[in-house]
Amino acid sequence: MRGTLLKAYKIATIVRMKPTLIKDLLASKPDGKAVTVCGWVRTVRDSKNLVFIQVNDGSSFASIQLTFDRTSPSAGADVKAIEENIAKANTGASVRAEGLLVPSPASGQAVEVTLEKLIVLGECPSDAYPLQKNKMSMEYLRENAHLRARTNTFGAVFRMRNQMAFAVHSFFQENGFQYINAPIITCSDAEGAGEMFQVTTLSLEKIAEIGVKAGNAGKKAESASSLVDYSKDFFGKKASLTVSGQLEAETLATALSRVYTFGPTFRAENSNTPRHLSEFWMIEPEMAFFDLDDDMDLAESFIQYLLRWALEKCRSDLEFFDKRIQNGLIAMLEHVAETPFKRISYTEAIEALEKHADKFEYKPFWGCDIQTEHERYLTEQIYKCPVMVYNYPKAIKAFYMKQNDDGKTVKALDVLVPGIGEIIGGSEREENYDKLLAACNERNMDMSNYTWYLDLRRFGTVPHSGFGLGFERLLRYVTGMSNLRDVIPYPRAPKLADF
Amino acid sequence: MRGTLLKAYKIATIVRMKPTLIKDLLASKPDGKAVTVCGWVRTVRDSKNLVFIQVNDGSSFASIQLTFDRTSPSAGADVKAIEENIAKANTGASVRAEGLLVPSPASGQAVEVTLEKLIVLGECPSDAYPLQKNKMSMEYLRENAHLRARTNTFGAVFRMRNQMAFAVHSFFQENGFQYINAPIITCSDAEGAGEMFQVTTLSLEKIAEIGVKAGNAGKKAESASSLVDYSKDFFGKKASLTVSGQLEAETLATALSRVYTFGPTFRAENSNTPRHLSEFWMIEPEMAFFDLDDDMDLAESFIQYLLRWALEKCRSDLEFFDKRIQNGLIAMLEHVAETPFKRISYTEAIEALEKHADKFEYKPFWGCDIQTEHERYLTEQIYKCPVMVYNYPKAIKAFYMKQNDDGKTVKALDVLVPGIGEIIGGSEREENYDKLLAACNERNMDMSNYTWYLDLRRFGTVPHSGFGLGFERLLRYVTGMSNLRDVIPYPRAPKLADF
Repeated sequence: MRGTLLKAYKIATIVRMKPTLIKDLLASKPDGKAVTVCGWVRTVRDSKNLVFIQVNDGSSFASIQLTFDRTSPSAGADVKAIEENIAKANTGASVRAEGLLVPSPASGQAVEVTLEKLIVLGECPSDAYPLQKNKMSMEYLRENAHLRARTNTFGAVFRMRNQMAFAVHSFFQENGFQYINAPIITCSDAEGAGEMFQVTTLSLEKIAEIGVKAGNAGKKAESASSLVDYSKDFFGKKASLTVSGQLEAETLATALSRVYTFGPTFRAENSNTPRHLSEFWMIEPEMAFFDLDDDMDLAESFIQYLLRWALEKCRSDLEFFDKRIQNGLIAMLEHVAETPFKRISYTEAIEALEKHADKFEYKPFWGCDIQTEHERYLTEQIYKCPVMVYNYPKAIKAFYMKQNDDGKTVKALDVLVPGIGEIIGGSEREENYDKLLAACNERNMDMSNYTWYLDLRRFGTVPHSGFGLGFERLLRYVTGMSNLRDVIPYPRAPKLADF
Repeated sequence: MRGTLLKAYKIATIVRMKPTLIKDLLASKPDGKAVTVCGWVRTVRDSKNLVFIQVNDGSSFASIQLTFDRTSPSAGADVKAIEENIAKANTGASVRAEGLLVPSPASGQAVEVTLEKLIVLGECPSDAYPLQKNKMSMEYLRENAHLRARTNTFGAVFRMRNQMAFAVHSFFQENGFQYINAPIITCSDAEGAGEMFQVTTLSLEKIAEIGVKAGNAGKKAESASSLVDYSKDFFGKKASLTVSGQLEAETLATALSRVYTFGPTFRAENSNTPRHLSEFWMIEPEMAFFDLDDDMDLAESFIQYLLRWALEKCRSDLEFFDKRIQNGLIAMLEHVAETPFKRISYTEAIEALEKHADKFEYKPFWGCDIQTEHERYLTEQIYKCPVMVYNYPKAIKAFYMKQNDDGKTVKALDVLVPGIGEIIGGSEREENYDKLLAACNERNMDMSNYTWYLDLRRFGTVPHSGFGLGFERLLRYVTGMSNLRDVIPYPRAPKLADF
C-alpha cells in the first residue's frame, strides 16, 4: 500500500520539484547528465588552471565538488559569468550551479560536477560572517545557534535527530501503537515529577498595580495573595506546562491498547548543567495488557531498534562523531544493539554494588536511589552489557507504580547503558483501585485532581505498563555530544531562551 | 534497509510480546488455531444456548466475537469458570479470553473465537459507568474525555489522528525533509501572529504581596509595573508560548535545505468557538531554493498524499464517519485527492467573487481579507475543485512575505478545499535584506528581537518558501467532525483545561 501511495505521488508531482538534493546527486550515476546544484559554499580552491568549489546543502554530510577547468571549460560554459561568480563565491555564500555529473578523479568522492553555469544567489561577507573562524567552541556556536546547523557538527546532529525521530515513529507504527498527543498546558501536577512553569494571561504588572492600590488603601501584606484571582485567568484556574504525558497516555492506552506520546515536556528546576534542559522532548509508550516483563521486552527491542537504525541509516554522520566527538562511539552502539540486556532486581543490583562500595562517592545500600556512578558501574564494569534493573523500593518511586506482594517494592524498571547510565525509566502501573488510592493517601495527595485517573481503575481496569525515554538523552547517546544543549536546535535552560 | 531493520527486530523480540491485537486476529486465517484475545466488552448477547460477546481493543473499528455454545462447548473449555465470568462480563468490562479462531457463520465478520477460557480482568459497574447511556452528546463525551476513546466515534478519530500524523512524517521523509523542533518557550513574538500565553516562575502571589507592601509604604499605582522584575524570572526576561515555529524553521532550512516542524503551538485569543483551540498542533515545512510555484506544487502534493493515505489506510473508520458523521465525506476526499488544484491570483479571485457579491455577508473588494464564505464559494461554487490563491495585498499579510515588483502584493498562498475553505497558508519569504528591513520598519517592529532572522539575509541568503497546516483542521476535514475539540484528546480553550 505504501508503494502505491508513493508511486502515485511521484507520478503526480515530485518531478516538478527542484533542485535535486546533493545527497541524491552523490548517489547518482556519473553519466554526464545535466544537473543543477543548490547549496552553500564550504571551501573554494583556486589554482592557476583549476577551480574546485565544495558545496553543501545539509542533505548529507558530504559536499559535492564543482570543478572548473580554465584550460578546457565545458562546451556549454559561460566562462566570463563563471569567473565573475567565482570571485564572489567565498565560504558561506549560496550558489546555484549547473553542469554535468561526471566521475571524479579525486579520492573520497565518486562524482563531481563540471561547471557550465554558476550564480551566487547570496554573498557572504567574510569579515562579518560568524562561522569564518577556524576553531569555534561549542559555547560560541550556541550563541550563534541560528547559523550553527551550517557546520559539519550540527548538520550531523540535526540529521541524526531527524532519523531518530522517524525511527521512533516507525518502531511504534510497525508494532500496532497509536501516536497520541498529551496536553501541554495542564492543571494537574503529575505528583511532584518536577517543578513546573506557570502559564497565564493575567498581567503581572496589573497584579502589582492592584497590590499597590490595595496597599495604599491599607491592606495587610499577609492577605495579599487573595488579590490574585485565577477565576479571571485564561483557563479559570492556575495552569502549568506539563512535566509528563503519562497519566493522560494511560487513559488512551486503556481504550486503544498501545499508544505513545512524542512531545515537549518542561521542568522549571534551576539546574544549570550539561545534563538538564528546561524544555525537552519525551517519548512515552503506554500499553494495556503488558506486565513488567512485557515492558522490559519492549524497552529492549526499542533501544536496539533505534541503535540499529542509527548504525544503518546515519553511517557517514556517525563516522564523523566517532572520529571527532567520541572515539569508539560506533563500537559502543553496536555492542548495545547486538547484546541481550541483562535483567536484575534492584536488590541484586545493590548486593552487587555493595561489593565495590569503595568505588563510589555515594555508598550504595538497600533503599537508596541508584546514582549515575552506580548505574555506569553496573553496566560498564560488573555486567559489561546493557542492564535492566527492576523492582525498586516503593518509597523512592512514584505513586502509580504497581505494588509487589512483598509490601516493600514496586514494579519499576530502569534501563542502563554503557556510557551514560539510565536511558529509560518505566513501570507496570497499579491497576487495583484500592491499592492505588492507598498509595495516594500515603502521599497526602489531593485526589480531587485525579478522579479521572482513578476512574481507569473503576471501569474495566487492566494490567498496563509503560516507560519514558528522553529524546535528547537518546541523541546525546547516539552522537556522543557532551551537552544536551547541543542536540536540540534552540535549548532552553535557566536564563537561556534566545531565538 | 528498512526491511533489514524490521526483520532483525522481529526475530529478536516481537514474538515475545502479547497479546495479539484484534486487528491482527481479524486479518488472520480462521484455521482453528489457539488465540488469546484481550480487550473491553462492547456487547453481550446471551440466549438460551448461545452466548456472543463482542470485544474491542481499539486497534481497529471492528470488534471480535467470542462465542460460547452451551450445547457443545469446545473440547478444552472450562465451562463452570466461563459461566461465572460471563455473568460479570457486561459492557465496559475488560477481559482476557482464550479460544480457537474459526470462520464465523455470521454476516459482516470473517472470523470468530470459540471460547475455551474467559477471565474478566476488571469489572465495570453498569450503574456508575459513564458510557452506558444510549444517546451521548458530544458535550457529554467531552466531559468524560478520559473515557471517550472507548466509543466508536472517538476510537475512529484517534486512529485517524495517528494515521495522519504518520502520513505527515512519511511524506516529508520520502521527499528529503529533516524533521526539526522549533522552541515552545520563546522570547520572540512572531510579530502579532496571535495573543500569547506568558510562561513564568515568578510567583503571582508574591508580586501581589510586594505591591501591597509598596502601597503601604506610599508607592504610587502609576509606577507599580516597576515592581515586576523579569531579571528574576526563570529565563531572565519575559517569556511566552510560541505561536509559530516558522522563523526558527527558516534558520534550519537555510542550512539543511528542506525541514518541517510538527509540534504544539498556542493562541491566547478568547475565542470560544468550534473552530478555535488554545493549544493545537502545527505542521510547518520550510524549503530553501523553493519559489512560490514550488511551494504550491508541494502544498498540492502534500494534501493529496494525506487524503490518499486516509482513503487507503483508514477505510473502515472513514466508512463510519461517512455514514454517521458527514454523508458524502469519502466522495469529497476522493475528489480533492484526484483533482488538480486550480491556481488563481488574489486579483482574479476578487474579480470572480465580485460577480456574486449578492451572495455574501462581507462584500468582496480588492484589498479585503478573503472570508471563509468567500473561500468556500470559490472552491465549491465557482471552480468546483481545490483552489490555490496567490499574490495577496501586502497590507493584509505578514512582514516576512516576499514582495512582488508591483509594489502592492506579496507572494502569499492559501489553499482552499471544498467543505471548509482555507486549509493551508504560506508564502515565499522575503530573502532580500533591505526589503525585509523596510517591511519591518513600516510595521514599527522592534528589530532587536530579530537580528538573528535578518542574519539569514546577510549571509548566503537564498530564495525560500514554506507553509503551515493546522493538524486539527486537517483532522476535522478528514473525519467530518464539526468541533476541533473532538479531534484532539484533551482540548484547551477559554475556561477549559481539564485532565
